[in-house]
Amino acid sequence: MADTAEIAQAASPSEHAGEVIQHLKNRFADRCTTSKALREQHAHTTTWLQNQPPDAVVFAESTQEVAEIVKLCAEFGVPVIPFGTGSSLEGHVNAPLGGVSIDVSRMNRVLEVNAEDLDCRVEAGVTRKQINADLRDTGLFFPIDPGADASLGGMAATRASGTNAVRYGTMKDAVLGLTVVTADGRIIKTGGRARKSSAGYDLTRLFVGSEGTLGVMTELTLRLHGQPEAISGGVCPFPDVHAACNAVISTIQMGIPVARIELLDSLQVRACNAYSKLDLEETPTLFLEFHGSAAGVREQSETFSDIAAEYGGGPFRWATAPEDRTKLWSARHDAYWAGKALKPAADIMVTDVCVPISRLADCVTDTAADIAETGLLAPIVGHVGDGNFHVQILTDRSDADAVRKAEAFIGRLAERAIDMGGTCTGEHGVGQGKQKYLRREHGEGLELMHAIKQALDPHNVMNPGKILPQS
Amino acid sequence: MADTAEIAQAASPSEHAGEVIQHLKNRFADRCTTSKALREQHAHTTTWLQNQPPDAVVFAESTQEVAEIVKLCAEFGVPVIPFGTGSSLEGHVNAPLGGVSIDVSRMNRVLEVNAEDLDCRVEAGVTRKQINADLRDTGLFFPIDPGADASLGGMAATRASGTNAVRYGTMKDAVLGLTVVTADGRIIKTGGRARKSSAGYDLTRLFVGSEGTLGVMTELTLRLHGQPEAISGGVCPFPDVHAACNAVISTIQMGIPVARIELLDSLQVRACNAYSKLDLEETPTLFLEFHGSAAGVREQSETFSDIAAEYGGGPFRWATAPEDRTKLWSARHDAYWAGKALKPAADIMVTDVCVPISRLADCVTDTAADIAETGLLAPIVGHVGDGNFHVQILTDRSDADAVRKAEAFIGRLAERAIDMGGTCTGEHGVGQGKQKYLRREHGEGLELMHAIKQALDPHNVMNPGKILPQS
Repeated sequence: MADTAEIAQAASPSEHAGEVIQHLKNRFADRCTTSKALREQHAHTTTWLQNQPPDAVVFAESTQEVAEIVKLCAEFGVPVIPFGTGSSLEGHVNAPLGGVSIDVSRMNRVLEVNAEDLDCRVEAGVTRKQINADLRDTGLFFPIDPGADASLGGMAATRASGTNAVRYGTMKDAVLGLTVVTADGRIIKTGGRARKSSAGYDLTRLFVGSEGTLGVMTELTLRLHGQPEAISGGVCPFPDVHAACNAVISTIQMGIPVARIELLDSLQVRACNAYSKLDLEETPTLFLEFHGSAAGVREQSETFSDIAAEYGGGPFRWATAPEDRTKLWSARHDAYWAGKALKPAADIMVTDVCVPISRLADCVTDTAADIAETGLLAPIVGHVGDGNFHVQILTDRSDADAVRKAEAFIGRLAERAIDMGGTCTGEHGVGQGKQKYLRREHGEGLELMHAIKQALDPHNVMNPGKILPQS
Repeated sequence: MADTAEIAQAASPSEHAGEVIQHLKNRFADRCTTSKALREQHAHTTTWLQNQPPDAVVFAESTQEVAEIVKLCAEFGVPVIPFGTGSSLEGHVNAPLGGVSIDVSRMNRVLEVNAEDLDCRVEAGVTRKQINADLRDTGLFFPIDPGADASLGGMAATRASGTNAVRYGTMKDAVLGLTVVTADGRIIKTGGRARKSSAGYDLTRLFVGSEGTLGVMTELTLRLHGQPEAISGGVCPFPDVHAACNAVISTIQMGIPVARIELLDSLQVRACNAYSKLDLEETPTLFLEFHGSAAGVREQSETFSDIAAEYGGGPFRWATAPEDRTKLWSARHDAYWAGKALKPAADIMVTDVCVPISRLADCVTDTAADIAETGLLAPIVGHVGDGNFHVQILTDRSDADAVRKAEAFIGRLAERAIDMGGTCTGEHGVGQGKQKYLRREHGEGLELMHAIKQALDPHNVMNPGKILPQS
């Protein structure tokens, strides 16, 4: 098993960064930059984590170039931090030990679309909106939708999911294969285009969610889905959070193949009404979407209405016209900004957890009580069909007491979720922010993760300081 | 990266087996046996691979006992071979270096069923039929069905799937979490009961499909599904294999959520008619099953009928009564025995591959031509909705020439599938039989697998000689 202390110490602060940067500038000219603004932008964090810029940023344009950069960095023991669009939430792109940020945003070619196999191959910098724009005329779509227009490489690295995951799964399910540059600069391919395989260890799933700590993903083979023949959806108010969650639980238990089922608490509805010009009743509300045949979506939504009524919810308000649906889901996607607009001067600290669906009502209710007791301004919104929800804390980052209070709340939430058989993060990832909860969640499994890290990145060059707590 | 030579040599033939067996007999009394018959039964192989019995078999009754046995074996460098029901097909339970077979079939308790979360926790020796018998009154079922009444631990170890995988996924999707005894005898838990998580490396998916080479699974948390409200199904003949495959491709591309779609070639239909007393037209035939609401299954099957007609298939014969459906699927499950009955004195060599669905018609057609040219008696049957199919070669194991001919055919088939973007095994696993194709399929990815093996089992104690070719 790995010696964790060894991993922690392997990558010293990048003393050879200067030499590496000189090589990179010679090789990549102005595609290698050390400008302060660009370095800070590449360590952007949307949370309260401190900005820790890399020593340099290189804009790579091919897998070969990524391999060259990694080889060079490995030779000098200089950290490598992969960068897509910078929309990650837990400090994944920070460079606590300095190093080189490899920006793959220019690797944005859709390499092949195999409509007949419902798959495609893309470079890691392609974003989810770009792939869907590309697919529009094929009758196919890529369903994973974390809100932000993230790069697909970044989404795979954090095992992202989002609103559609309840029906279409997460990046774990969507990624069929990868091209990865390993810590020693080799280019390997994992997985393949067959729907299933029993041929050896599942390297694809090992890299998905590894947050750049085991290698840099440069290409992805992704599973696509046929655009549904019919889509219907709408909103359904509930008397309280508990009733709304119970309706979700029944919906999932009945096996209704709902495509999206999202909870907004009263405060979040108020925020969305104001920000997105909606006129929803300010009470806990579910946003729903059904995909299927015309008859199928009618049947699904009728069954859901019956369930909602059982828990005192309704009436269901349909958004049948595409423009009404778009307005609704734009509002849902803008929930972050709507929340922020509740107190424009505030800073945001956002966190997520996921629990078994039967514990959802309890976890959300206990969390709402905790928010009230702690005196936080913090709307709740969630992909509740998966048992996953987010809390967005509006706070003041310059007020150490306020930050401490929010961090303590986040800690209690993570532990509450783990103690209910859930996880400290359903989709945001570990990064720097959630490391301290992994021991409680994984116990000795953490030693296995350390051993794998040690085996695949013995000199701790790949995105050091992420995922694994250094004890 | 791992030194593959080091792995190959680490476990010497079990020179200390005698000492270990003495300890095991003292500890487990008659639950530790060295009887020749039992040892040979525990190295049972349904393929042409030679029977390589372990030095002893121990019937473990708890995770703690498994940990004790592994610790003892690890101390003496004696191999450990996990054993469920022995239904594996590629020599997974063979003991090429001797060692101790840990039989978990007595670990057959269903530990919890969480109906409201659609999950359960079972010991590794529970079989798929047992769990479904247990679940009958809950309205839930466990969908993965590889045909054999395999242990759930064994199914996870080989990443099994089967007839329902086209709709419900494979063991990769069904396993939410595991209890695993690692190579040093530690007990770890992976995954959890949340529907999704981004909290660290996906150890669960790493163990699923690792065939006991990284640890012994002792408990599994499994995802369940609601029993469908309605089931319909039937059989549909086609003029040739190409037409049948094209109908499958269209069905998948249209997004029809078919629950089962199985191809039997003419020879297999003939075999099933004879063995299971059916009266099907002896032409390539699809067996289908649809799950959903009453209206949903009607709609699905009507759409399928239209597709079949486009390719010259039909008429579709419905099996609406449950007893007709049972007869049909029993026949499908007995396809192996039906095939064998074509030539009762023959030995069976069975193999499987999986290709992207667009290549299915080509791969099956080319394979049928190869069978004809080679002069084999070999029915084809497959889970074609996944692009996965099996060839069952009837041969004579005592005839070295015949075995060589069959092995050469299997090699051509594996390479044909890989060259079409597929895999050398869709669901049977690598074991001993498919190792030689992994380099072609995974390239340098194989070095990563070696590195992981070396990290988690540095002394090569866990099921040595499986999956990884020792070059």
